[in-house]
Amino acid sequence: MTGNKGVAYIKPGQVEVTEIDYPTFELKDGPGVHPDNVGRKVPHAAIVKCVATNICGSDQHMVRGRTTAPAGLILGHEITGEVVEKGPDVEYVQVGDMVSVPFNISCGRCINCKEGKTGVCLNVNPDRPGSAYGYVDMGGWVGGQAEYVMVPYADWNLLVFPDRDQAMEKILDLAMLADIFPTGYHGCVSAGVTTGSTAYIAGAGPVGLAAATSAQLLGAATVIVGDLQEERLAQARSFGCETVDVSAGEPKDQIEQILGTPEVDCGVDAVGFEARGHGEHAATEHPATVLNSLMDLTRAGGALGIPGLYVTGDPGASDEAAQEGSLSIRLGLGWAKSHSFVTGQCPVMRYNRKLMMAILNDRVQIAKNVNATPIPLGESPRGYEEFDEGAARKYVLDPHGMLV
Amino acid sequence: MTGNKGVAYIKPGQVEVTEIDYPTFELKDGPGVHPDNVGRKVPHAAIVKCVATNICGSDQHMVRGRTTAPAGLILGHEITGEVVEKGPDVEYVQVGDMVSVPFNISCGRCINCKEGKTGVCLNVNPDRPGSAYGYVDMGGWVGGQAEYVMVPYADWNLLVFPDRDQAMEKILDLAMLADIFPTGYHGCVSAGVTTGSTAYIAGAGPVGLAAATSAQLLGAATVIVGDLQEERLAQARSFGCETVDVSAGEPKDQIEQILGTPEVDCGVDAVGFEARGHGEHAATEHPATVLNSLMDLTRAGGALGIPGLYVTGDPGASDEAAQEGSLSIRLGLGWAKSHSFVTGQCPVMRYNRKLMMAILNDRVQIAKNVNATPIPLGESPRGYEEFDEGAARKYVLDPHGMLV
Amino acid sequence: MTGNKGVAYIKPGQVEVTEIDYPTFELKDGPGVHPDNVGRKVPHAAIVKCVATNICGSDQHMVRGRTTAPAGLILGHEITGEVVEKGPDVEYVQVGDMVSVPFNISCGRCINCKEGKTGVCLNVNPDRPGSAYGYVDMGGWVGGQAEYVMVPYADWNLLVFPDRDQAMEKILDLAMLADIFPTGYHGCVSAGVTTGSTAYIAGAGPVGLAAATSAQLLGAATVIVGDLQEERLAQARSFGCETVDVSAGEPKDQIEQILGTPEVDCGVDAVGFEARGHGEHAATEHPATVLNSLMDLTRAGGALGIPGLYVTGDPGASDEAAQEGSLSIRLGLGWAKSHSFVTGQCPVMRYNRKLMMAILNDRVQIAKNVNATPIPLGESPRGYEEFDEGAARKYVLDPHGMLV
Amino acid sequence: MTGNKGVAYIKPGQVEVTEIDYPTFELKDGPGVHPDNVGRKVPHAAIVKCVATNICGSDQHMVRGRTTAPAGLILGHEITGEVVEKGPDVEYVQVGDMVSVPFNISCGRCINCKEGKTGVCLNVNPDRPGSAYGYVDMGGWVGGQAEYVMVPYADWNLLVFPDRDQAMEKILDLAMLADIFPTGYHGCVSAGVTTGSTAYIAGAGPVGLAAATSAQLLGAATVIVGDLQEERLAQARSFGCETVDVSAGEPKDQIEQILGTPEVDCGVDAVGFEARGHGEHAATEHPATVLNSLMDLTRAGGALGIPGLYVTGDPGASDEAAQEGSLSIRLGLGWAKSHSFVTGQCPVMRYNRKLMMAILNDRVQIAKNVNATPIPLGESPRGYEEFDEGAARKYVLDPHGMLV
Repeated sequence: MTGNKGVAYIKPGQVEVTEIDYPTFELKDGPGVHPDNVGRKVPHAAIVKCVATNICGSDQHMVRGRTTAPAGLILGHEITGEVVEKGPDVEYVQVGDMVSVPFNISCGRCINCKEGKTGVCLNVNPDRPGSAYGYVDMGGWVGGQAEYVMVPYADWNLLVFPDRDQAMEKILDLAMLADIFPTGYHGCVSAGVTTGSTAYIAGAGPVGLAAATSAQLLGAATVIVGDLQEERLAQARSFGCETVDVSAGEPKDQIEQILGTPEVDCGVDAVGFEARGHGEHAATEHPATVLNSLMDLTRAGGALGIPGLYVTGDPGASDEAAQEGSLSIRLGLGWAKSHSFVTGQCPVMRYNRKLMMAILNDRVQIAKNVNATPIPLGESPRGYEEFDEGAARKYVLDPHGMLV
Repeated sequence: MTGNKGVAYIKPGQVEVTEIDYPTFELKDGPGVHPDNVGRKVPHAAIVKCVATNICGSDQHMVRGRTTAPAGLILGHEITGEVVEKGPDVEYVQVGDMVSVPFNISCGRCINCKEGKTGVCLNVNPDRPGSAYGYVDMGGWVGGQAEYVMVPYADWNLLVFPDRDQAMEKILDLAMLADIFPTGYHGCVSAGVTTGSTAYIAGAGPVGLAAATSAQLLGAATVIVGDLQEERLAQARSFGCETVDVSAGEPKDQIEQILGTPEVDCGVDAVGFEARGHGEHAATEHPATVLNSLMDLTRAGGALGIPGLYVTGDPGASDEAAQEGSLSIRLGLGWAKSHSFVTGQCPVMRYNRKLMMAILNDRVQIAKNVNATPIPLGESPRGYEEFDEGAARKYVLDPHGMLV
Repeated sequence: MTGNKGVAYIKPGQVEVTEIDYPTFELKDGPGVHPDNVGRKVPHAAIVKCVATNICGSDQHMVRGRTTAPAGLILGHEITGEVVEKGPDVEYVQVGDMVSVPFNISCGRCINCKEGKTGVCLNVNPDRPGSAYGYVDMGGWVGGQAEYVMVPYADWNLLVFPDRDQAMEKILDLAMLADIFPTGYHGCVSAGVTTGSTAYIAGAGPVGLAAATSAQLLGAATVIVGDLQEERLAQARSFGCETVDVSAGEPKDQIEQILGTPEVDCGVDAVGFEARGHGEHAATEHPATVLNSLMDLTRAGGALGIPGLYVTGDPGASDEAAQEGSLSIRLGLGWAKSHSFVTGQCPVMRYNRKLMMAILNDRVQIAKNVNATPIPLGESPRGYEEFDEGAARKYVLDPHGMLV
Repeated sequence: MTGNKGVAYIKPGQVEVTEIDYPTFELKDGPGVHPDNVGRKVPHAAIVKCVATNICGSDQHMVRGRTTAPAGLILGHEITGEVVEKGPDVEYVQVGDMVSVPFNISCGRCINCKEGKTGVCLNVNPDRPGSAYGYVDMGGWVGGQAEYVMVPYADWNLLVFPDRDQAMEKILDLAMLADIFPTGYHGCVSAGVTTGSTAYIAGAGPVGLAAATSAQLLGAATVIVGDLQEERLAQARSFGCETVDVSAGEPKDQIEQILGTPEVDCGVDAVGFEARGHGEHAATEHPATVLNSLMDLTRAGGALGIPGLYVTGDPGASDEAAQEGSLSIRLGLGWAKSHSFVTGQCPVMRYNRKLMMAILNDRVQIAKNVNATPIPLGESPRGYEEFDEGAARKYVLDPHGMLV
């Protein structure tokens, strides 16, 4: 019988690789599994051997102790791998297929799924619409920073790569299809990025860099990325972005230096609720800073894409309002400029096939741009730590030693 | 030589009908006129005899003293009338044409206008994108609660009614095309209202009632309107809406009674920044109440249309944050539900012709639904007062005695 | 063991009610079943008791002998009923649910389905993308003019009505959700019908009347319907449409009489390839007449929705070009007017829930508008005959005597 | 007083550079000027010094004698230059501005213009909606293959380049903004080209090459271009396109060789009504060949963009049907695949600013891709001749010797 290992959240600041159950076609009880999901039969599932499984910035919220994630929760929602087993209801996906797993779990049968809103599927999370693998309050689907993971509704959820060898050649690029590439792309599409746009991406973490890559792919004339960390900004410059150091002050002024005008067409928030202040306030959290800044620097008639995560409750926040997810937002500023705002999980399925085609035909080099860095599963604690310290890297766990 | 009379803002709580200059093809100095606009030549303008010119809720913000509007500013941006004179550059509009004047002034020549974003025209307001007649900080275009008003870029801005007699028969309906009908419709379109939707409209003032009418026109299955005032709710019920009394508590519970589910597909904010609290908080202003409530009661995957005005600064607000236009918004709630938010002035021109066609072909009775009530220009102070007290009426000033 | 009866196509001009197999969770061999579909397992299927099952104009193409449909093929793709049995993979639909069955069969798992293009599903018809129940060259799924029918991918395909009693009260309206109401609505949406539009619907058969109803629901200012048969035109007038008798000449002139202008904003082809000529040519088939006429009478910048069926081959056509599906189209006319053209099966799922909501909330009376006429299953031959003769009725078969 | 020279159509196969009037702010009588336009005052016009003015494939239709163009008609609708004079109504464009002139003349004041449909403006061509400079049946606006040209509604029509020197550096690229780059881009957008698409462009003339360039800019995974002429195909390959030699047979087979599947997502017709047959039919005109082929090779659910010109009448066509603009189209094939078709003049203004931004920021090299080749105005007859013979060049006339 095959064993299994996964990365478990232990306590704030600590993760650990532990033995876990090999997945079956039933969702068993365990840390974080919602009672209503315990014992759920999943004959529509596939068991996926995780070939590449990334650490995500949103995992860090849990690992930093900013959530109510229970000890023992197996992390990981950015999964790429090979189907090794399939349930009796799986009709089109085949054992041996190389696949990308969208981070949002969806049923393919509810109203929202039928409308393509797979980020708010109604049938997979008893708590509320929307779910993901290995995440607190998401129903308890076991995470995929592991050797093997179970993927429900496999025919619906899985994106099959056309050719195994070709897939392995570009595996680090394809690994970004599970989350950050579509997420960055969705942020740009939501912000209206198209041929000839000027775009400002707040945040040069992996999602920000993926958004910047997406903006280029969408034909943006100029892509400007802002961050507090020079190493991340250097990474953005490495593929042709302009950059703004927000520790030096409001981005608007630096944008004017670059463009000759202090405003861009499109603003993307790739930071979310753990935002820090700009300029002299950079040392402390100011959760509304990014959004207020984006309204300031996006032109009238422009739009804001907000792929960065904002939460309904944040017990670890610095003030009471933020603890219940309330932010002090200068909405009047956005209103005066007729801004629109698009929030929420990226519905990965809307974009992942298109982006796969772009990768396979050498139209984009996402792995290089986000500095994808494979490390063995066993070294995942180091990956979490370095990433938390701001390393300009996207860590890709390699449970089966297939990436190097 | 023809004289002219207009409604002037005097001081908080007071307006007055005064003699004013008959308009010419130049924007002359006067209360509220931006220095850069003084002396601006407008050979592209038409002089419009105001047949129907409405009092708007957004005028009330000025009259209540919540803005920096100067004494003497002539009010009025909801203008319907007859072209009596035209400048040398006007080519298609003819003297004698009956017309509707979109409240947003736009040039028809800038980038935003070419994209249909006439609410943020770049060429008419030296302060910032976007303008309107008779409004503080909008460049100083003289208001149209008057006998005559000057309309710049007449070929671009004016909507010509096909037939004069037909227009006079439906003049109270057509009078709503200048602002509230398109504004309410835009709110619904932005919120995704379509065939079969369930929609909640926050606010049963004229814009709210126009939004409710629009939702019906767009084919909504159920339209629910919420307000604090029973008289306004009764008006909403008069044309088939369901209603929610928000003074009795959170709308979500009452929505559940109506629909069997506590959420709607689409939420429209027809209140804006002077919102009061719900339930026990109804006596005081809680500017973020409506938005937070809408996020709570709109389903995951839904959208919010925000035609209600939010301002960049509100010196009269109850707390410091609100004074600079900052609201404490539970954005995390909206993010978790993948909500989108559309704000800003309605670009009237995008909708007014369609809505005119619906009116002229008896598809909608907007005047009846908003309880359009003509009063002589001379009685406008009474109109302002009664409207401020919450009368369930839309006051239509009648400067030339043509409405009764 | 339950028996089953269905309407079989026998030969040109003849249909017959015969004993057929009660459906199981396997697609068995039979008239018209594609070899690759024989023996196909469908654990994801539901068995539906057909409460209302309509005769469609596209069935007539087969019954008139204009296709290669084999003798014995069981007809019927407009099915409404009750789930009486479900396969092991069906998770959300329940036995006892009252449901509408979209006429297009789709898998919910292929690229096209994920994009909402359920009319061209890749997995259900071995011949080509797209399928339907009881139709020639559509893979061989047994038709639903029967007592019972099997519906594959039930969780994906079925639209569940919220309440059984409410559904039975409006069953004749809800029966139109399987095909003609969404199909007519799709034609209007494709043609750009919206608030205030003027629309011309070519054809006053059931799809044409459904399109006219949809145009009204979408807020059209004026809806004009054209046909050769006075009885059908009278039906269109009964719910407020204007009408054009195309036997009296080109519709353009009569449109000018109605609108004061010879062009409409939106054109819908609800006729398809068996079109007859206009005016003096009305006695013979002129398959391109409707499209050429629509380009003539639709304004520059307008659009054409083409829900009417055009076929790849038509052995019974009057000339050689038409026999291979080629039509002599004045494309240059449409090009000069920048027309767009949208063709194909309506993807029912995109619209049926919205339209259901409109029906259940009394926003539309589709059954009355199309003159829905229930008849016993046993009298289906009469229904086919009368419909073929141009009766202004939509025949709804009543296999279980539940409709009267 | 300044003189003026322009390229006149003389007779089939012959053009000539002649002395013509220097433009004024009135449209004077002349070859091809519509009587209703004679004497039209244009105080809103600018006089543009033509710096670069291209020969277009659609000019060839006239020069080949396929139209009713009168002798003496001054050709040219692809104009780039400098504003040297402006009428009294021009407010924002300034003398000295470097500008691109959209080939479609539009008023900026009619319904269609307000909706962005500038290709079918209602006010500039007395014959029918839509106009262009120097073209038969387009109202008689004098062509711009000249030293100077008059551009009406200058504030609306002209795209101003941000900087003169920068513009002159990229003048050959910017010269493509007047027509072929937006036209090719519009064809791709209409065909649904986006990130990861596979696209087939029929025709490797300048519009086809511009479409191929646009498809790449839009992120297409693979762009395949088909033509009869090897020289043009080599040009397409020079910037990374795959190619298909249609003289060797149906494109579908060659597409399968390239993609592994015989269908693409998106089809673009950059040929139009003078299409020749494929394979053995390549020597003769088969006007419906391209469209029928595109329906064959575009996947179900795909779309066709049709920027290639189709005309309402073609006296020189080989058969009677084609002479009145009728083509024998296999519409049933497209219908079965749910294709949509978008036809008509590209509304240049919708795209030209975006594409300008892409050019100015080095995102695209359109001049190189279409092989832009400047020649003196005096050598325009040679340009016409070589282009007619199939030279893989885009000829750019240089009336003032500023391009070399």
